[in-house]
Amino acid sequence: MQNIRLTIEYEGTHYRGWQRQKPRYQISDIRGQKRTVQGVLEKALSKITKERIRVIGAGRTDARVHALGQAANFRTKSKMTPEEFKKALNSMIPKDIVIKNAQRVKESFHAQFDAKSKHYRYLVYQGPTPSTFLKDYALYTSYKLNLKAMREGAMCLVGKHNFSSFQLSGSSAKTSIRTITKLSITSHKSYRSPITDHRSPNSRLIFFDIMADGFLYGMVRSIVGTLIEVGRGKISPSKVKEILKARNRRLAGPTAPARGLYLIKVRY
Amino acid sequence: MQNIRLTIEYEGTHYRGWQRQKPRYQISDIRGQKRTVQGVLEKALSKITKERIRVIGAGRTDARVHALGQAANFRTKSKMTPEEFKKALNSMIPKDIVIKNAQRVKESFHAQFDAKSKHYRYLVYQGPTPSTFLKDYALYTSYKLNLKAMREGAMCLVGKHNFSSFQLSGSSAKTSIRTITKLSITSHKSYRSPITDHRSPNSRLIFFDIMADGFLYGMVRSIVGTLIEVGRGKISPSKVKEILKARNRRLAGPTAPARGLYLIKVRY
Repeated sequence: MQNIRLTIEYEGTHYRGWQRQKPRYQISDIRGQKRTVQGVLEKALSKITKERIRVIGAGRTDARVHALGQAANFRTKSKMTPEEFKKALNSMIPKDIVIKNAQRVKESFHAQFDAKSKHYRYLVYQGPTPSTFLKDYALYTSYKLNLKAMREGAMCLVGKHNFSSFQLSGSSAKTSIRTITKLSITSHKSYRSPITDHRSPNSRLIFFDIMADGFLYGMVRSIVGTLIEVGRGKISPSKVKEILKARNRRLAGPTAPARGLYLIKVRY
Repeated sequence: MQNIRLTIEYEGTHYRGWQRQKPRYQISDIRGQKRTVQGVLEKALSKITKERIRVIGAGRTDARVHALGQAANFRTKSKMTPEEFKKALNSMIPKDIVIKNAQRVKESFHAQFDAKSKHYRYLVYQGPTPSTFLKDYALYTSYKLNLKAMREGAMCLVGKHNFSSFQLSGSSAKTSIRTITKLSITSHKSYRSPITDHRSPNSRLIFFDIMADGFLYGMVRSIVGTLIEVGRGKISPSKVKEILKARNRRLAGPTAPARGLYLIKVRY
């Protein structure tokens, strides 16, 4: 038996998210997108190995959420090398999923339980008109967000806190206590890209980079949605601490849409 | 009668290109994508003005070719301001087309005939694995292209030449003589983007920026396809001059795929 760890990049636009849907949900899937990243990988690996393979992912990303560095592992009796698995998978799966790396790990390794920290990024595109090229990859706003105010509001979130106010319902987590080790907000004015209009002096990309030992359901998107309200002047920076302490989701800002969110890296 | 000039951004992935198809082609369109950027704009403008509007574009981009700064103009009896047209259009057209600017121009202005020069960019993504996020936006290669050799090969193309060797059939141009004023090849190793893996030390984006007074059908893609062969060592840099002088398309390299091509700007 070998245990193989995968590093996976995917564009979430056409997926229901990472997690394979339970049978009871599959009926309604007929109407919409039914593919999940986990489902696609398990199907391909089962074909390759002729075993029933279960893929364990580090983070259960939502529909339309992207990943540059999702981590996962699977166990198999196959004698194929990790590099052979990488090549076989990449030749079989759709092009919006790419296996970036495959390596053998010790048999006890578990991509979800062993994760020490995760790094998520949220991307906002601010400019006079939306960018066609970022319509599935960023939240667009025409408002000039106040970075200083957002950073001031973000400060109180760093550290070990109960993040109930930034948790969506539907979570099965036992505790709402998490530790954010980094929350940075950076502006990229001189972003040179053919797929954003770098010539426009009034447009910029804003990155929200958040690292934590774990995340509650909808936590990054709730935090970003709240900080954007701060950036627009609708919530004062000092109010963020009150919202955190209230442990009440209704006091926080709206949930930022999934399309701007990226799972960047999982640390073990 | 007013004449309005538009600056248009679009993602070409889901279009048959800029130009409205003639009726005789529309039969086969049923099988595939039938939308054209021109067609979408003309339909929307005709609805807005209740006139039959014809939109004249500066460059007839092919299917899947993108634009950051396509230029176009249309004449109308409507009293609406350019800003009102911009807003009305952006609310009606699909999100993969965005009107970036609209301005009144003199009645004689013709977006195609008055264009002094155009700037196209071709984007190559080079790395150990493809980027899911660039699958419709760049040509992917795993080969380490030799930039020095490509630049050396490109040098002889700058200036006034007969570009028959870099022209695809199906062109109606009277002459194959064009003047390339700029051809630069730049590498962007430190490209910071959530949609390319900036952490990978072995990946980079290569920009081919070409400016000319006009372009033959398939010219940029033929030049880039040839220069990539030079970068791979399959054609020597000095051979490019021979290919140019031979005026024979069969001697040049393959045509680079449309998805990596961007119409960046049109100058008047």
